[in-house]
Amino acid sequence: MDSRQRPLGIFDSGIGGLTVLKEIMEVLPDEDTVYLGDTARVPYGTKSGPAVRRYAVENAGFLLKHGIKLLIVACNTASAYALDELKESLDIPVIGVILPGARMAAAVSRNKRVGVIGTEGTIKSGAYFDAIKSIDPEVTVFSKACPLFVPLAEEGWTEGEVARLVAEEYLKEIKGEGVDVVLLGCTHYPILKKVIAGVMGKGVKLIDSAYATAIEVKNLLSQKGLLREKGEAGRKPLRKFFVTDSPERFLKVGKRFLSDSLKEAELIKAGS
Amino acid sequence: MDSRQRPLGIFDSGIGGLTVLKEIMEVLPDEDTVYLGDTARVPYGTKSGPAVRRYAVENAGFLLKHGIKLLIVACNTASAYALDELKESLDIPVIGVILPGARMAAAVSRNKRVGVIGTEGTIKSGAYFDAIKSIDPEVTVFSKACPLFVPLAEEGWTEGEVARLVAEEYLKEIKGEGVDVVLLGCTHYPILKKVIAGVMGKGVKLIDSAYATAIEVKNLLSQKGLLREKGEAGRKPLRKFFVTDSPERFLKVGKRFLSDSLKEAELIKAGS
Repeated sequence: MDSRQRPLGIFDSGIGGLTVLKEIMEVLPDEDTVYLGDTARVPYGTKSGPAVRRYAVENAGFLLKHGIKLLIVACNTASAYALDELKESLDIPVIGVILPGARMAAAVSRNKRVGVIGTEGTIKSGAYFDAIKSIDPEVTVFSKACPLFVPLAEEGWTEGEVARLVAEEYLKEIKGEGVDVVLLGCTHYPILKKVIAGVMGKGVKLIDSAYATAIEVKNLLSQKGLLREKGEAGRKPLRKFFVTDSPERFLKVGKRFLSDSLKEAELIKAGS
Repeated sequence: MDSRQRPLGIFDSGIGGLTVLKEIMEVLPDEDTVYLGDTARVPYGTKSGPAVRRYAVENAGFLLKHGIKLLIVACNTASAYALDELKESLDIPVIGVILPGARMAAAVSRNKRVGVIGTEGTIKSGAYFDAIKSIDPEVTVFSKACPLFVPLAEEGWTEGEVARLVAEEYLKEIKGEGVDVVLLGCTHYPILKKVIAGVMGKGVKLIDSAYATAIEVKNLLSQKGLLREKGEAGRKPLRKFFVTDSPERFLKVGKRFLSDSLKEAELIKAGS
């Protein structure tokens, strides 16, 4: 099979990576995609580096069996802990969400003060901090783990009093530091964009790794001559979804993240 | 080895089961204990029945290797989904948290209107509903899943505005039904007792499965002639803790659940 016609592979710890898939569908509407949500072991954000690395390698192995031409690690924690290992061991290009988000945040900040929010694991790994510093050492980075944002987003409490109070509590420190950019370092957080923007105020730009990643995927495919040929008019790209537990919950919650086009997900065994 | 001298085995999806262990330590201060927290796969509350059953069987298998004389399933979701299977397949007595909690709630309610709160999985399983109904068919049961309570408890936000608002939102329906008992159907919830009691008001009793379970464990050991002999004065019971991921986080958060006596946990591979 012509390499260009092969699908893109995307995995996440669960549902959050659908925000990345959504951007990829907009930026690269012709590409086929295979998505794996590791819902049997979600969340990764509170798990250790070795555990997350093992899960990531298993997820990548599953997607490779579907003949993918490029792997997108659409999970910040897995990108933080496992990207180097995946890059070394796989023959196809691998792209995470950390570096694209870090690049965009560093480029957009005027006052060189950037806030980064994410899960416990992502923040603890220091991956965004290191990435931004390697891009522009003059940027000062303020990081904060926001563990309640994921359950809030999954519960659908994306506006109202509770969401606002939780956001105020988590964001008060980085707000006090006068940052002009906040990097949403977790794929769930775009769902809470409105309330985060409200708390941070008008002068602060929110950078979403999902969009930044989709742009880099497009550039990388183009560079490597792997962009899909247009093909016949009206062809609909193939969308496959796999989960390691409970397709019902994935579909129910996932619709908030992707759209009503999410209709079917196949159950596989974690680590298979 | 004399069966009576063997330890009690306890497992939970992670940290929450420590509230059960704590009660067991008070009610049965002489018994040795082996605790397993499946922190690599926590939480169980959003996972499916088949996944939770598989994890439960693996956890029980690990504890059996430590020569336990009785197994306590200190996780409501695992009790709801996996207790029957464990009882059938194991040679030692197995006790879950559902039936003890249900018995106490049914006994304590005067107006026979009982509220049950728990994780998505526990509530969806209907296990508390069925248990209470089988004990006293005249009790009317009002159930509500409260997914944000676990992350709130783990984050340590156990009082203050956010906790109160979240509790008000979740509890308004069962409060409106005029229950006089609320059963805390998740091992994390005792940590939030104060805020739940505050929202429900004075006339409502909170029943905690942890205490009810410890009492039943004592009765069952006594019935079966398995209570530990007192032994020499001043002997300290052995406490072993195992986790399937990140002992550091388990110890840090676990201290809020148990006490500062939680000092060490050994890492094992999930499913080993």
